[in-house]
Amino acid sequence: MSVTIRDKAVYHQQTTERMKCHLLVPEWSAREKLALSCRMLAAEEHGSGLAGQLSARGEKPNTFFMLRFGLGLDEITSGNLLLVDDDLNVLEGEGMPNPSNRFHLWIYTAKPNVNSIMHTHPPHVSALSMIGVPLAVSHMDTSLFYEDCAWLPEWPGTPIGDEEGQIISEAIGDKRAILLAHHGQLVACTTIEEAAIMAIFIERAARLQLLAMSAGAIKPINPELAKEAHDYRLKPRAIEASFAYYGRRVLREDARVLT
Amino acid sequence: MSVTIRDKAVYHQQTTERMKCHLLVPEWSAREKLALSCRMLAAEEHGSGLAGQLSARGEKPNTFFMLRFGLGLDEITSGNLLLVDDDLNVLEGEGMPNPSNRFHLWIYTAKPNVNSIMHTHPPHVSALSMIGVPLAVSHMDTSLFYEDCAWLPEWPGTPIGDEEGQIISEAIGDKRAILLAHHGQLVACTTIEEAAIMAIFIERAARLQLLAMSAGAIKPINPELAKEAHDYRLKPRAIEASFAYYGRRVLREDARVLT
Amino acid sequence: MSVTIRDKAVYHQQTTERMKCHLLVPEWSAREKLALSCRMLAAEEHGSGLAGQLSARGEKPNTFFMLRFGLGLDEITSGNLLLVDDDLNVLEGEGMPNPSNRFHLWIYTAKPNVNSIMHTHPPHVSALSMIGVPLAVSHMDTSLFYEDCAWLPEWPGTPIGDEEGQIISEAIGDKRAILLAHHGQLVACTTIEEAAIMAIFIERAARLQLLAMSAGAIKPINPELAKEAHDYRLKPRAIEASFAYYGRRVLREDARVLT
Amino acid sequence: MSVTIRDKAVYHQQTTERMKCHLLVPEWSAREKLALSCRMLAAEEHGSGLAGQLSARGEKPNTFFMLRFGLGLDEITSGNLLLVDDDLNVLEGEGMPNPSNRFHLWIYTAKPNVNSIMHTHPPHVSALSMIGVPLAVSHMDTSLFYEDCAWLPEWPGTPIGDEEGQIISEAIGDKRAILLAHHGQLVACTTIEEAAIMAIFIERAARLQLLAMSAGAIKPINPELAKEAHDYRLKPRAIEASFAYYGRRVLREDARVLT
Repeated sequence: MSVTIRDKAVYHQQTTERMKCHLLVPEWSAREKLALSCRMLAAEEHGSGLAGQLSARGEKPNTFFMLRFGLGLDEITSGNLLLVDDDLNVLEGEGMPNPSNRFHLWIYTAKPNVNSIMHTHPPHVSALSMIGVPLAVSHMDTSLFYEDCAWLPEWPGTPIGDEEGQIISEAIGDKRAILLAHHGQLVACTTIEEAAIMAIFIERAARLQLLAMSAGAIKPINPELAKEAHDYRLKPRAIEASFAYYGRRVLREDARVLT
Repeated sequence: MSVTIRDKAVYHQQTTERMKCHLLVPEWSAREKLALSCRMLAAEEHGSGLAGQLSARGEKPNTFFMLRFGLGLDEITSGNLLLVDDDLNVLEGEGMPNPSNRFHLWIYTAKPNVNSIMHTHPPHVSALSMIGVPLAVSHMDTSLFYEDCAWLPEWPGTPIGDEEGQIISEAIGDKRAILLAHHGQLVACTTIEEAAIMAIFIERAARLQLLAMSAGAIKPINPELAKEAHDYRLKPRAIEASFAYYGRRVLREDARVLT
Repeated sequence: MSVTIRDKAVYHQQTTERMKCHLLVPEWSAREKLALSCRMLAAEEHGSGLAGQLSARGEKPNTFFMLRFGLGLDEITSGNLLLVDDDLNVLEGEGMPNPSNRFHLWIYTAKPNVNSIMHTHPPHVSALSMIGVPLAVSHMDTSLFYEDCAWLPEWPGTPIGDEEGQIISEAIGDKRAILLAHHGQLVACTTIEEAAIMAIFIERAARLQLLAMSAGAIKPINPELAKEAHDYRLKPRAIEASFAYYGRRVLREDARVLT
Repeated sequence: MSVTIRDKAVYHQQTTERMKCHLLVPEWSAREKLALSCRMLAAEEHGSGLAGQLSARGEKPNTFFMLRFGLGLDEITSGNLLLVDDDLNVLEGEGMPNPSNRFHLWIYTAKPNVNSIMHTHPPHVSALSMIGVPLAVSHMDTSLFYEDCAWLPEWPGTPIGDEEGQIISEAIGDKRAILLAHHGQLVACTTIEEAAIMAIFIERAARLQLLAMSAGAIKPINPELAKEAHDYRLKPRAIEASFAYYGRRVLREDARVLT
């Protein structure tokens, strides 16, 4: 057996083409993808009572899919999502959205390319948010966050008003993710798929960071390789394939999520 | 899309009104709510063999719902709860209450506004109780305990007698919660719903605290914002909605809890 | 409502009498109790591949119930247990016992009052066994081990031969439990019930200890109260009631354990 | 009862003979064993989205069983595995292999005795890989790795190209396992069974190490005894019995793995 040696660019090119051909993904609507995301995050322990909120833009301008307040992430179905306007008034569905979602509106307004926001208080992100350090990116799997995770070191309080919305909206800047001191995490992405994968992996990143810090000092990784891994991991087809995988796990557990 | 800026008080007012209208909660009896609470805490890993006890006032004066000694939290149903008098004699039901419940009586006597007590030994609270530090409140989700969690630094021994009852009863003072050194946690609240949510979140608070402390030093939060978050989280309608959510989780797992 | 103050001895006496009357426990055979114990420990994460072994004396002298080598703790039923003689030859059942069980024989020989041995490598005990410190007893729930857990600081190697058996047998002395460096835990008790509860709680004790040590320095507890709690927790009726509770959990999960 | 004292070599010899006779193992094909291994590792939390890859040599030279890219470890069945050639072209099955599998080819080429490679990013290995320390072997259960786990201290980037393949292939040397900084673990063994058990236990070893390091300093074990335990644990019959045990657990959970 002989192994042919080729330039790495060849493999990157080949991989992109092959993934386009072979990584087929289901045709889910925005509603369905948002409901699946809620269940994915519930399964990854993102729930904290009724805290944490996911949203996505609706088809019409200035409309947004949001969760009905009072339901946990593990209870969301595509059918019980609300459609609200840009002042949180309900357009479709029963009940009210979480009043804390007001700060989502600020981000959607400030960043037209953002189509989905996922904000949760999972345990490891929450614990990390209490000790005043930003997210450490020191593992290939968390390279998604390399130079792509902002850090809000001061807690502006329960995000029920406009001021908190402005603060968080500005703090995230042009990054996909932000770690919020004394609070949790938020990802704001161009697709629901990307937001869901980022949300899953920011909690994993925080878990790895806490485990590592409990035992020693984290070593930095090579910036150039981290950047390459960041871009590789965020290839849209790879993100979609990962989302489809987590979606199948959700459906295997409870197919009613799409009703 | 334009976002209107309003005073925060407007949103607090609006939220209270909307929650009253939209957060409908089931009509459960005290028995049912206490049984559901046992299962909620079991699911959150509060069980420690047969240790830990929940109780609530009965309808008649000086009567209390208690667990039958020998049953675990995961075995409680509304039907197997005991009704006992103020000397732990059984009025309704089979078996005996946990003799350690004697100290519950002391708290009910000292604090007429307390209608439910939940005392458990969950793992993170237990571990925290071994290192001589009070509960740290440094996260929005644990703001429930801001200036609302007492600390008993000395362990008075197995709480089977009257002396331990007096000590714990006095130590909790006018707070809803107390961390008991070398022992566990206790919450004493005006409603079963509030007690259950406080119990769930004190273990979560202890978990976050231990995770954070294993990696660094916990930063304090802004006292004024913490107080606001404390009050916001404890709005009765929000507590009821959270309780209803956890209750639905229990029922999804095992509907026999209400038999 | 008035609370009568009585001497603590009154309550201890009353509790003993009431427990005798109210804590009814099932009539399980030694085989059944040993099989249930295997499943209890499996559920508490004591399994480590095929490592860890439980045993109990048979009805006839110099006979012992042991596990069939090759089966995990989660696969044991009362019907697949082996009866072996005092040289590990099989008297009843198919297959062979774990050759490491030889050191059990040494303990049974040295301690005629011991009727059951449970030796496992659960994760927290295992991790604790790597850092050269004895088990810390600093919580009411782990008072079972107060002055009742020996410590073998040197690892004598895989316990397949006689030498290791002699070393472990001597090291445990007149205590119920021992923490074995670089290896795991062993409890040797007069009843299967007591051994099972001790085994469950030694892993819990190690977990609490590691959690506590990761965040701070463990405070000692009052020796007199610890002794009282130790004896209270080890009342035979309380142990039997705890065992019955864990047994019901096992049966709820898989009733085939008794076949 | 008297206990006969014999030389330890007698017991080692007896054990080998008895295990050959009594530890019967199922007749699974390479495809089936690889699919079972995927599920075993999924159950032990080795999955990290779509990262991590298992492979084994096919029957014909220069052919390899690999996972279809886009499927998680928990979705693999013997029927959806791919057979690929030594340039990752698909010979049997649908879809594409993970392009990162290229570095597996380098190891198979360099080490003709290696028949299975399992490379994953489980959480404790991942966290350990961030702090710049090699795997510590300080427990009997992890003696499998005594002088048998290499350490790659520099991360060569996402292993999509040939350079990373060469680096990892050389770094593992003549050992069965390697801890890859900022990345994960890899085991390369002569049998699928051995690879699966090593993979399960390297994550357990990392977990024990992190737990231990969070609480204190790990003590070294006796090198001679560690070597003996290493060889004892790696007896082919013991490995096969352990694999069969984990395989039964997988089948109990989902028998479709063999379709």
